[in-house]
Amino acid sequence: MNIFARPMNSSLEEPIVALATAQGQAAIALIRVSGKDCHTLIENIFRQKNGKPLSSIKRNRMYYGDLMHTQSNTMVDEVMLCAYQAPYSYTGQDMLEISCHGSLFIQQQIIQLLISLGVRHAQPGEFTMRAYLNGKMDLSRAEAVADLIASENESQHKVALHHLKGDYASEILKLKDKLIEFASLIELENDFSEEDVEFADRTQLVKVLSESKMHLNTLLQSFATGQAIKEGIPVVIAGKPNAGKSTLLNALFGDERAIVSSIAGTTRDTIEEKIHLKGIQFRFIDTAGLRETNDEVEMIGVKRALQKIDEAAVLLYLIDVLGNDVEAIHQEMDEVRERLGKMDEIIFVLNKSDKANEKLLAHFENKTGVLCISAKEQWKTDELLEMIFDKNGLSAVNYNQSIVINARHYDALEKASNALKHVLHSIEQKKSNDLIALDLRHALMHVGEISGGITHEDVLSSIFSRFCIGK
Amino acid sequence: MNIFARPMNSSLEEPIVALATAQGQAAIALIRVSGKDCHTLIENIFRQKNGKPLSSIKRNRMYYGDLMHTQSNTMVDEVMLCAYQAPYSYTGQDMLEISCHGSLFIQQQIIQLLISLGVRHAQPGEFTMRAYLNGKMDLSRAEAVADLIASENESQHKVALHHLKGDYASEILKLKDKLIEFASLIELENDFSEEDVEFADRTQLVKVLSESKMHLNTLLQSFATGQAIKEGIPVVIAGKPNAGKSTLLNALFGDERAIVSSIAGTTRDTIEEKIHLKGIQFRFIDTAGLRETNDEVEMIGVKRALQKIDEAAVLLYLIDVLGNDVEAIHQEMDEVRERLGKMDEIIFVLNKSDKANEKLLAHFENKTGVLCISAKEQWKTDELLEMIFDKNGLSAVNYNQSIVINARHYDALEKASNALKHVLHSIEQKKSNDLIALDLRHALMHVGEISGGITHEDVLSSIFSRFCIGK
Repeated sequence: MNIFARPMNSSLEEPIVALATAQGQAAIALIRVSGKDCHTLIENIFRQKNGKPLSSIKRNRMYYGDLMHTQSNTMVDEVMLCAYQAPYSYTGQDMLEISCHGSLFIQQQIIQLLISLGVRHAQPGEFTMRAYLNGKMDLSRAEAVADLIASENESQHKVALHHLKGDYASEILKLKDKLIEFASLIELENDFSEEDVEFADRTQLVKVLSESKMHLNTLLQSFATGQAIKEGIPVVIAGKPNAGKSTLLNALFGDERAIVSSIAGTTRDTIEEKIHLKGIQFRFIDTAGLRETNDEVEMIGVKRALQKIDEAAVLLYLIDVLGNDVEAIHQEMDEVRERLGKMDEIIFVLNKSDKANEKLLAHFENKTGVLCISAKEQWKTDELLEMIFDKNGLSAVNYNQSIVINARHYDALEKASNALKHVLHSIEQKKSNDLIALDLRHALMHVGEISGGITHEDVLSSIFSRFCIGK
Repeated sequence: MNIFARPMNSSLEEPIVALATAQGQAAIALIRVSGKDCHTLIENIFRQKNGKPLSSIKRNRMYYGDLMHTQSNTMVDEVMLCAYQAPYSYTGQDMLEISCHGSLFIQQQIIQLLISLGVRHAQPGEFTMRAYLNGKMDLSRAEAVADLIASENESQHKVALHHLKGDYASEILKLKDKLIEFASLIELENDFSEEDVEFADRTQLVKVLSESKMHLNTLLQSFATGQAIKEGIPVVIAGKPNAGKSTLLNALFGDERAIVSSIAGTTRDTIEEKIHLKGIQFRFIDTAGLRETNDEVEMIGVKRALQKIDEAAVLLYLIDVLGNDVEAIHQEMDEVRERLGKMDEIIFVLNKSDKANEKLLAHFENKTGVLCISAKEQWKTDELLEMIFDKNGLSAVNYNQSIVINARHYDALEKASNALKHVLHSIEQKKSNDLIALDLRHALMHVGEISGGITHEDVLSSIFSRFCIGK
């Protein structure tokens, strides 16, 4: 434990109560209580069915009994009760879990009963906040709890679990430890500056710093994938009417296609459709403005629509090859490229290619960013899907590696990376220890923001604990 | 235990799974499994966090661990697991309760995982059905579980709890035992008919039968109250426009007024409004057709509306006393009575009486079914509420007494009561033992329907166990 761990705030010991299960009528509802003396609290209101005294109740066990109104001495419900003892609980405090019959009335009654005994309603996330403040989990794991609960598909679930398991946190921790070690040595040199000691091997330091920076950059790069997983991959489908958009969607997602929602976009011009495939969520954006691309006025609509969906990761531009020759197709592609200017993100999908002549097919084969398919015949539609996955780094996602999904973490990691760049630059420029130490501290502060536990005191504590100089 | 207890059906041992908590995203969701071998099932998919083997898991205790996909060996979620051992569980079977993170995806995954291991989806009420079939509770208690979960207010909750606690069931059981005892003796007399023995004292039998019949009738009478509690008290408010309906509703329910829903009735003519007061639910029915009562055509509308709301317990007919003399008021009341013909259920509410002259007030004071009030000044509105409560037998409801709320029970009790009437009649007429025994058996069968446990075998088993004749 950090010897500088913040002192327990008394308001953090107040017993709090909340319904932990979903709102609504069900077989069972679970009500959670956490805080000081919540175990003694229950003594007045719980009676074991077997008639044994409450003193016989052991921790982490389920007991069957009656929950009683204190004043009227009437029964509220038959419940199962489980008591957890600090620090061996989710929050690290004494806790109670009451499983009652899932009637809305009973849920209210039990919470009211506890409130009447001095327990207060919990704030959103307050149980997890207490878990964090009591050192049961770091910030990144606490955030993962929320992500896990919100997870709607396999990839979101995998990433959240990875974070919850603490693999990500321990990766950040290792990075932090490495930096702390060197920061400690640098600070020590400062303390002994009159004596001109060099505790930290500069060559070794540069090596570790470079490695750490690379590590940070890998994490930063994973954010695009993380965003795609968390928010879904935004894919814009465009093209002239009857180019085969609906057929393509059906071909790509077939029977697996599960339309989660079909919501109106920010403007009348865009329609967004959420689809899950292979555990990944796609947000297909259909822009009305993109449909008519030959007309000059409509082209403005295209640009405006594209500005609105600027966050789109991929643009699938469909062209019907039937009735178009090579030249006409090139012309349409050029027009789109010219007006949209998003070269990397456009995939030109030449549809109905099964009926196209061989010359045309041969011409466009192996052209970068162009794929000949037949949506109707499901010909090369798998390849198209792979291309979409590739463009988002999802083809080779390794869920055992850490993926940054949290914008707060991305921000902190970016700042840490910049700070390390400064450190490396300062060392190169042979700047003073003070400046190097300052930048290192900045890097540490930002890395520390992720787990939430690091402060300047961490550095001090590391020095004191390692060296025991006793002054 | 009944030695004729039905044999365990093998399909009743199949492990079943269901989400026990409400649908939706929440901190926690609880998944329940019941059935044979469900404990061994979990061995492949649960890993304790403390690394201890599963064999160390004890019953009724909470264990923290990882739930694993069997095939991919990847984690589904961090969960709390509690195992219950037959017969010490809700269903009386081996059970598991898995508390997982309340993500919809995780809930699905865990249920899918269990399904893949041979567990099947539970049918509605299947856990409680198993509890009944395994002798954990009788039918009336099982039904009370459903009532308890559906309870929306205090009175519903109290009645359901009374039934769940088994007070009602034991009352029925005592009644049944009394009848069984006499039935046994009568049947025994039949067996020894050649010897002309009289085991059952006729005078005593008549006394017990009469008491039992009275008991049944008390229970039958409680059904009206039970219905009022379960379904809410239907109160029709009628009267000419501006008689003060809205003011009356506000006066009766004031700030406590909590409009649960305002739903359109079966026709455009009726509007229903649910209001809870003193733990009782009221359904105020406002019939458009009742508003204009002077017009002959509208009177047909009144009749039709009243036919539609024939189940209404009370009709509050509001008359504005201002601008009406005694004669006019009597005429309006007579017209309403004549056309509606529901003398007992009408309360004539003479509103705005605070501004009426003393002669008029004195005239209507103490007239049965008439009350002078002022909704605006809340004058005598409490008395009106008491009258509504009285008409539904709710003023003196004793929740420690059994109240029949179940139509199935009412039906069974009514049939039992009729059968007892037959028995008493047969004894009076000095009919043969065979006939008396037959009617007694009918009465017993119907009483037994409530708890679900009685059959003709019960009577036999009682004879055998009491007399041990050994033949």
